[in-house]
Amino acid sequence: MGESVQVKSAAEPAVREEEFDAALARMDHALRAMWAGDPEPLIEMCERSDEVTLFGALGPVEQGWQAATDTWRWVGGKFSVGGPATIEHLAAAQSGDLAYTSGFERRTTSLDRGPVEEKVLRVTHIYRRSGGQWRLIHRHADLPPGDPRPSAQSAA
Amino acid sequence: MGESVQVKSAAEPAVREEEFDAALARMDHALRAMWAGDPEPLIEMCERSDEVTLFGALGPVEQGWQAATDTWRWVGGKFSVGGPATIEHLAAAQSGDLAYTSGFERRTTSLDRGPVEEKVLRVTHIYRRSGGQWRLIHRHADLPPGDPRPSAQSAA
Repeated sequence: MGESVQVKSAAEPAVREEEFDAALARMDHALRAMWAGDPEPLIEMCERSDEVTLFGALGPVEQGWQAATDTWRWVGGKFSVGGPATIEHLAAAQSGDLAYTSGFERRTTSLDRGPVEEKVLRVTHIYRRSGGQWRLIHRHADLPPGDPRPSAQSAA
Repeated sequence: MGESVQVKSAAEPAVREEEFDAALARMDHALRAMWAGDPEPLIEMCERSDEVTLFGALGPVEQGWQAATDTWRWVGGKFSVGGPATIEHLAAAQSGDLAYTSGFERRTTSLDRGPVEEKVLRVTHIYRRSGGQWRLIHRHADLPPGDPRPSAQSAA
């Protein structure tokens, strides 16, 4: 029925799709833990590889699992009081051993023990499948700079 | 020899790798054209699909080929005098019909007829292969916010 026959991968497309959905659920949990101050589930999602890259909304640009881990522990130390949050995917797809999502994170948290506020981030995540597990290999997050066009209706 | 046997895709991994390299070269050309004020090669790189998403460094958040096209024409109208530019990939990979790059764009251009300046962007691109062509399906670009840690050495 048009499925690929993979020598290296035993999983069929439907299984891979289920595995990716499960990874997105783990990621949802990991992000909520981070916003409450616990970076460990997000670190656990991350591939142990030098290819990992992190473009963080707070500023850091990192490459490699160890650097990303150190940065996420620093980020976790800044957040507390994880409140209501929604994670919205504008687009999500997986093929072969790569997958991505693009969308928004709306999170309510305290940064550096300051006021509890909602912030919206634009976020791109890239995942790689290895050993039957989808793991994060790239995060790019930023505060939307705002659309300067007079007629713009912010999609965020 | 471990290759996948694909029913839907006739291309072998080495061919797909070559096709992806060719797409990155087309993208390099398309970005340089944009910075000189011509958005059409970048529009040509983009998949004609509602799944396209654009998180632009100048602010826009768009979904769908038409909205991305309209925005890139607006961006092209703002740029002139494309000067020296380098495109650096920190990471790049392709698998199945998906591929991505993460890295930096250092471009010298005039925005809104202002001074010709170099700016550095953090950029994530996602590509999908269809009909033997890799096409852009997502761009996320921002000005690096700067790493607030006292010890930070900016990777940009």
